[in-house]
Amino acid sequence: MPRALGKVYLVGAGPGAPDLLTLRGAEILKRADIVFHDALVHPEVLALAARAEKIAVGKRCGKHTTAQQFINKRLVDAARKHGVVVRLKGGDPMLFGRAQEEIAVLKRAGVPYEVVPGVTSAQAAAAEAGISLTQRGLARSVAFVTPRVGEGEAPSAWAKTAAAADTAVIYMGAGQAAEIAAALIAAGAPRDLPVLVAENATLPEARCLALTLRELPHIAEHGLTGPTLIMLGRVFASALAASAESGVLPACKTA
Amino acid sequence: MPRALGKVYLVGAGPGAPDLLTLRGAEILKRADIVFHDALVHPEVLALAARAEKIAVGKRCGKHTTAQQFINKRLVDAARKHGVVVRLKGGDPMLFGRAQEEIAVLKRAGVPYEVVPGVTSAQAAAAEAGISLTQRGLARSVAFVTPRVGEGEAPSAWAKTAAAADTAVIYMGAGQAAEIAAALIAAGAPRDLPVLVAENATLPEARCLALTLRELPHIAEHGLTGPTLIMLGRVFASALAASAESGVLPACKTA
Repeated sequence: MPRALGKVYLVGAGPGAPDLLTLRGAEILKRADIVFHDALVHPEVLALAARAEKIAVGKRCGKHTTAQQFINKRLVDAARKHGVVVRLKGGDPMLFGRAQEEIAVLKRAGVPYEVVPGVTSAQAAAAEAGISLTQRGLARSVAFVTPRVGEGEAPSAWAKTAAAADTAVIYMGAGQAAEIAAALIAAGAPRDLPVLVAENATLPEARCLALTLRELPHIAEHGLTGPTLIMLGRVFASALAASAESGVLPACKTA
Repeated sequence: MPRALGKVYLVGAGPGAPDLLTLRGAEILKRADIVFHDALVHPEVLALAARAEKIAVGKRCGKHTTAQQFINKRLVDAARKHGVVVRLKGGDPMLFGRAQEEIAVLKRAGVPYEVVPGVTSAQAAAAEAGISLTQRGLARSVAFVTPRVGEGEAPSAWAKTAAAADTAVIYMGAGQAAEIAAALIAAGAPRDLPVLVAENATLPEARCLALTLRELPHIAEHGLTGPTLIMLGRVFASALAASAESGVLPACKTA
């Protein structure tokens, strides 16, 4: 008789700070036999999986160090050997996380799975800045977009979507500030639109800079070269006023 | 000498299931002296605040039973009397939560505050359905919108934003399915666009129905009359195929 298959949990590790993991995520990690984790997951989150083997399989921001197909295969193999397999992803698994590819492989192999949502970095940056992504009378919509497309993937209309939303958050746009600003302006976004750039939100090394869309290409001059979120919209006008006085802010405390 | 002011924590309670609260949220609730909570917060989350006075102040979905101005005033008053004041909100405070109005009042009164993000219901419904809101080659953007506007507020372009996004999630649209479908079609969304309607995601009573945008006005006939999320996009095509065979699904297990 073949051994019963284990269960694979796709768990969102949250935006960075280890205590922004969910209670459910923590409980599953404590029971885990093996954890395949993104490289950027906080060590204290990994430490919750005290008795698990831990294997770093990738990195956010498209710089995957392990091929996705290899990760998929290892998840299925692990479920044949272990009862509790965790795929631990930065942020929320269902937002820019490639979870669908892993789920498809698990389903084909008949491996039971469960997805545990997590706080995504846009929510964490908004919380840290004290600026709500939606506000009555000002913003009734928020779009999360990425300009990044996979190899062979058709170009996306991300800039049009971002320009059509009251508030927009651009994921995985690091190093492309000039192209992003140009695309947004071409899509109709005003040049003086307030922008909040958040780097490492919720971590001790968090930094934030508010500027206008016109000035966005210059963020590298301010030293913001790490993994950044680019957030745009009228809701960030107060951050822009605060930042004009003080430049780059620690911990995004603009409010 | 005046008494030092306490701190007000705006905490996201998450989407429904009590273990989808963050570790930070749980830790703050355990220390809380007084908790002002939305009516829909799970009793087990409230129970974490074992030693706190608990005051129900409102409801999600715009049906506020306590006027916002009254809530604002009570938060400031509470910070004058208590060390740890919690404003516990369903979902994430910075998404459709009216946090900005509370933050503005706290800032004016000089009351220290901190926002603790939470998982929002769209993320939880996507996790439960096993359908990622973004998918390589299919969806590089997701918009969260609401058709609801406050009294005296200008109408918003929510339908245009939703139609411009690869995936869209409509919050607080309960009871307006026909108007929502008409507005989306007028904004250019195709009539056969897959729609996933999720009611009470992550709770034992969760139900889900996939249908096309053309059929959206009929959800009440399927008994989906509670607080629902309306999710649209090509990523839900698999859910539509599953739902065509089985009708309303418990626990959104479409995948």
